[in-house]
Amino acid sequence: KKVQSGLKSHFGLVKLCYSLNFLLNGAGYHSESKAKEYKHVCKRACQKAVDRLRAGAMALEAVTAALIELEDSPFTNAGTGSNLNLCGDIECDASIMDGKSLNYGAVGALTGIKNPILVARRLLNEAQKGKLSYIGSFFLFVSFLVGIGAQQWALGHGIPACPSEKMATKFSLSAYRRNKRKMEQAEKLETVEIMVGHEEPMSASLDTVGAIVVDQEGNVAAAVSSGGLAMKHPRRVGQAAHYGCGCWAENARDARPYSTAVSTSGCGEHLMRTMLARECSTAMQTEDAHQALLEAMQNKFIGSPFLASEDGVLGGVIVLRCCRCGEDQSSDNFQALLVEFLWSHTTESMCVGYMSTHDSKARTHISRLPPGAVAGQSLAIEGGVCRLGVTD
Amino acid sequence: KKVQSGLKSHFGLVKLCYSLNFLLNGAGYHSESKAKEYKHVCKRACQKAVDRLRAGAMALEAVTAALIELEDSPFTNAGTGSNLNLCGDIECDASIMDGKSLNYGAVGALTGIKNPILVARRLLNEAQKGKLSYIGSFFLFVSFLVGIGAQQWALGHGIPACPSEKMATKFSLSAYRRNKRKMEQAEKLETVEIMVGHEEPMSASLDTVGAIVVDQEGNVAAAVSSGGLAMKHPRRVGQAAHYGCGCWAENARDARPYSTAVSTSGCGEHLMRTMLARECSTAMQTEDAHQALLEAMQNKFIGSPFLASEDGVLGGVIVLRCCRCGEDQSSDNFQALLVEFLWSHTTESMCVGYMSTHDSKARTHISRLPPGAVAGQSLAIEGGVCRLGVTD
Repeated sequence: KKVQSGLKSHFGLVKLCYSLNFLLNGAGYHSESKAKEYKHVCKRACQKAVDRLRAGAMALEAVTAALIELEDSPFTNAGTGSNLNLCGDIECDASIMDGKSLNYGAVGALTGIKNPILVARRLLNEAQKGKLSYIGSFFLFVSFLVGIGAQQWALGHGIPACPSEKMATKFSLSAYRRNKRKMEQAEKLETVEIMVGHEEPMSASLDTVGAIVVDQEGNVAAAVSSGGLAMKHPRRVGQAAHYGCGCWAENARDARPYSTAVSTSGCGEHLMRTMLARECSTAMQTEDAHQALLEAMQNKFIGSPFLASEDGVLGGVIVLRCCRCGEDQSSDNFQALLVEFLWSHTTESMCVGYMSTHDSKARTHISRLPPGAVAGQSLAIEGGVCRLGVTD
Repeated sequence: KKVQSGLKSHFGLVKLCYSLNFLLNGAGYHSESKAKEYKHVCKRACQKAVDRLRAGAMALEAVTAALIELEDSPFTNAGTGSNLNLCGDIECDASIMDGKSLNYGAVGALTGIKNPILVARRLLNEAQKGKLSYIGSFFLFVSFLVGIGAQQWALGHGIPACPSEKMATKFSLSAYRRNKRKMEQAEKLETVEIMVGHEEPMSASLDTVGAIVVDQEGNVAAAVSSGGLAMKHPRRVGQAAHYGCGCWAENARDARPYSTAVSTSGCGEHLMRTMLARECSTAMQTEDAHQALLEAMQNKFIGSPFLASEDGVLGGVIVLRCCRCGEDQSSDNFQALLVEFLWSHTTESMCVGYMSTHDSKARTHISRLPPGAVAGQSLAIEGGVCRLGVTD
């Protein structure tokens, strides 16, 4: 398998100064018309997260706020507007991880809940509280629930039900009918051509959404949410619900100089097999962040032995890492952070938005592979670096 | 958290000569009466796997045969005899990994199928066949299905249904009624004491079963199956269905000198958070296998930052690694393998069985922590080494 670095790096092109950082993404194919909508929703999600951060919220709360906004948008394949499965139902995956406690919560194939991320978040909270808080369900902790069990748990914890009809959109329904016809034709022909990455046979099938945040204490958090593949088999669980695959967040500690947060998007099976979120997080402990991510994407994703039989490997990551600035380590009161944020993808395009508490509005960007580069075999990588502090 | 190495190592104590290797386990607490039953089922499972190997089967097929036997035993918490969940239902997790292709299949919260491992295996097979074989479900590949979706997929692929009543046993039903009473009392008192690892409040709640195999071509495979925690929340998915957590198998390749196979057992959340199967597999690439496993269990499990808030960390692993013997590398025809097999656990005890195609019967062993060692904080580690070949 050929590995090409398709795009010259623009590392350092985007700079934020003295600020807190927030980044989100959705990888896949973005037409010009869709790009506009994506940028809008990215901006709103950035704004929500930064609003929370300005109010003193921690990373975990800010990242949840961003995900809710992304899920509520009818244009993303998460929450409202999610792809419909083979039976015409919406089944969502979502997960969230807290870099401070290293706690984690995930739901898979969840139906009838407007914001799957809220259920994942609540599972994480319950784990945080510790085992003795569990009377009704009696156990250590539960970090992963699926299907009707996840829905019932959510309802039992005060998260309201939402009829599936309300979560479907005109677009998702017409995409479902179109896909259904295609499948019926394909079954007649007894052959199917899969066109992922080349055209759009299955609505927005790769547009998992995610976000990563660092708060003013330097805590990181990551989250991801997805409606999964269009026309997927009922109860298929994708990378957004898989530990290590959809998102990862780990604060710095002893022998781990950098705090890292990662969220992934793309073809679920590719992201799962390669445990891409965790691999990128691990890679980011080496000094040169840009080189580390480039090598991780080339060797652990495009060139992964776990995907040797695949023709193309489709995905995108957003990555954030930070450490205390050297000159300020002497003072406990002044916390300055050096934050590097990067994104990389092998899909045709990836929409990225980012914002700090010192920005008046979010910046958004549709990153694309250069003309002629082959999706699934080439990659684009970009990013920036900034110095942050808690004092205004 | 204190890390003690509770047991002096007996590495090298158990030896098999010139043979193929097969190992299986179930970690938890084993009373003397239960130990006897466990040893019996371990022996039968070993025999099944070795029968397949003798007939020329590959590792993947042999490991499946062992798991079926383990699932069919009413004494194991897998398949028939599985723990009942909060609603009195049986919901099983299982997964399997092939070291040669690196393909993987998993089911979570599966009901109404006698042998969950067969569904995981079938998912792996379908992935092996490649994407174009999928007419009905139309997709790249599916490696993880849960709940009713997994059941329907299984039925659609010719795996017969099995009424849940047939999978429950006298023991599992009476344990359920006992647990239910305890919970009702606990809810009245508004407090619950969890006694995992000290006594047996929840039937055989940690006895996930698993197996690892190396075949005569040197391919490795690993599998795991579990009924999950007794009285678990419906649709809670545990480590046996989690990629990287329940089992792992990877053949040797370029910069990876050893083939490794790992299967884990114990507290699902502990095994999940630490991705113990994959961690042990990665650790086993360093030269001293015994030291590598000891360090992995101490640093990546008992001392894991991901479980810092837990009082005790409960689990067990069986590990197998092999490489071509040095002196035989010149000849392509004579394949000699050096196989090291180890097991380690932090639970009170772990039942291990192993057998080669040259043995007339399996050997079984109940490994126990030494008197006074604290489960969840101490570990036992044992293992053996042997030289294998394909010629009789």
